[in-house]
Amino acid sequence: MGSDKAPKPEIEGALQAARHHGARVLLVGPEARLKSELARYPGARRLPIEVVHASEVITMDDKVEAIRAKRDSSIRVGLRLVREGRAAGFVTAGNTGAAMATAKMVLGALPGVDRPALAAAFPTVLNTAAVLLDVGANVDCEPVNLAQFAVMGDIYCRAIFGMQRPRVGLLSIGEEEGKGNDLTREAFQLLKQLPINFIGNVEGRDLYNGDVDVIVADGFVGNVALKTSEGVARLVRAVLKETLRSTITRQVGALLSRNAFSDFKKRLDHTEYGGAPLLGVKGVCFITHGSSNTNAIKNAVRVASEFAAGRVNETIARELARLRPAAALQTS
Amino acid sequence: MGSDKAPKPEIEGALQAARHHGARVLLVGPEARLKSELARYPGARRLPIEVVHASEVITMDDKVEAIRAKRDSSIRVGLRLVREGRAAGFVTAGNTGAAMATAKMVLGALPGVDRPALAAAFPTVLNTAAVLLDVGANVDCEPVNLAQFAVMGDIYCRAIFGMQRPRVGLLSIGEEEGKGNDLTREAFQLLKQLPINFIGNVEGRDLYNGDVDVIVADGFVGNVALKTSEGVARLVRAVLKETLRSTITRQVGALLSRNAFSDFKKRLDHTEYGGAPLLGVKGVCFITHGSSNTNAIKNAVRVASEFAAGRVNETIARELARLRPAAALQTS
Repeated sequence: MGSDKAPKPEIEGALQAARHHGARVLLVGPEARLKSELARYPGARRLPIEVVHASEVITMDDKVEAIRAKRDSSIRVGLRLVREGRAAGFVTAGNTGAAMATAKMVLGALPGVDRPALAAAFPTVLNTAAVLLDVGANVDCEPVNLAQFAVMGDIYCRAIFGMQRPRVGLLSIGEEEGKGNDLTREAFQLLKQLPINFIGNVEGRDLYNGDVDVIVADGFVGNVALKTSEGVARLVRAVLKETLRSTITRQVGALLSRNAFSDFKKRLDHTEYGGAPLLGVKGVCFITHGSSNTNAIKNAVRVASEFAAGRVNETIARELARLRPAAALQTS
Repeated sequence: MGSDKAPKPEIEGALQAARHHGARVLLVGPEARLKSELARYPGARRLPIEVVHASEVITMDDKVEAIRAKRDSSIRVGLRLVREGRAAGFVTAGNTGAAMATAKMVLGALPGVDRPALAAAFPTVLNTAAVLLDVGANVDCEPVNLAQFAVMGDIYCRAIFGMQRPRVGLLSIGEEEGKGNDLTREAFQLLKQLPINFIGNVEGRDLYNGDVDVIVADGFVGNVALKTSEGVARLVRAVLKETLRSTITRQVGALLSRNAFSDFKKRLDHTEYGGAPLLGVKGVCFITHGSSNTNAIKNAVRVASEFAAGRVNETIARELARLRPAAALQTS
């Protein structure tokens, strides 16, 4: 029930994930409504899709108290299915803060993880994927949290994007070791000791150039970087549209180039990446953009399935347990 | 001597600023070289342009020690001209870190300013200008620093962009008052008390939407936001170019739309905004991008002149002195 146009993208995304990726999907929300919507799709009955009732819905404007009070919200019910082992993972396009808070509460953290982190994947100039974490689960972080994010990001990249040895960078302001703020300078020392391919500090302009695969930041900085990117993308779209429409010649030109613009849109389409996993919780939880369409939901269901099948959480717990005795990952 | 193609953009920018804006320009750098370059422009002799000798040049790779050691660098000599009152302001496209450090050392801070801040101006969807500060002068800030940035940004916007009552926002992750990290939550309380048009928290996606005129952040976060924007802009350019070139039809379309693309480039052109002032130092210091062209230098000289003529620094010192007795701006 989370997306801006819920439940249509969720239902259609579930149908496509079932049809094309063999996923079995539990749709969580008001039963009567979901069943009547589902009945519109003739093929649905032959697909492994079930409805699980949840009487409440968390809105984008709900505050913390409201979120806690809605014990039968679709987010809470969905995450309970994961905890109880009735679902391999949970996907939501709803209120990100509510989803994160509820996942931490209902699922709890994996052993060895002090703070779960939200990891966003996006495309680069080289058409590779890069992963930025944390993009908003933790606003004030300790160096050890960033070290754990690095390990989780590395494992996620290997499991989901099939990278052998992802290059892990620390988001800072200057490439030299001494550059950055107190947090990043201390985190740098921890990241150096980890058995990952740590390439040092990277800057905001490196996020999209394909030179780094996993970018580690505290949740405040990561969130600002992600949302600033959205802002720039909107600015570019608005200005491009305006300038291309201003004369007939340009309109004809734009018409001839229209496939280029649709390719362009596709290349930069975040819906291909399946949303952001909350890494470090005991279970699989993917949060997608509120503007998610059918494709975004389909891909999120696919990637969540891969995440569960790839036993990413087991690997995270094992790696962090192995590292914990080392100075690098002890909570101070 | 600072830009990537120095001294050509500097010399041509100075010529244009002299010709079109009546600026008198002192070109600082190796005298023989600058004079021989200047001799190539026949009109130069009739313009009020002089050369001031500086035997050393700070490179982009120079470390702090090298910067300190080069006592006769063009940056140091230029800033000394400002301190001695022989120049109304200084413009450089050189090493940003070196320029900031040298300006703080040579000029010192204005009374009432604990930390000078670098302020970057950029275009919005609505074709207005917005100013983000600090974009890199201070990595670890106290709430009081952010309050001073807000006052300086407000004054800068009024003086240079002619805004009556700029809307000042605090860069955070969520709009509600309680959202953000420890620093922004405390800063929020100080900003509320200031005699400025404080509109509360803004997010990364608001930077470019025209809803806010002055955006306040610590230098780490501001720098990440600025450089991330550069990264996205490069990604968009690269992908657009690639997709528009991939078939003949698209190439023809792109050719017909080429004026649109040049308009587009112009709308988003940072060179129109005249670079970033280091606000809060006793003197006028503008730092432009290393890739600055003639237009960027011309505009930086123009804006630096306006900054000096508008007595922005006097206003900053007066406003901060007036506010200092208030709890809001006392250094804790």
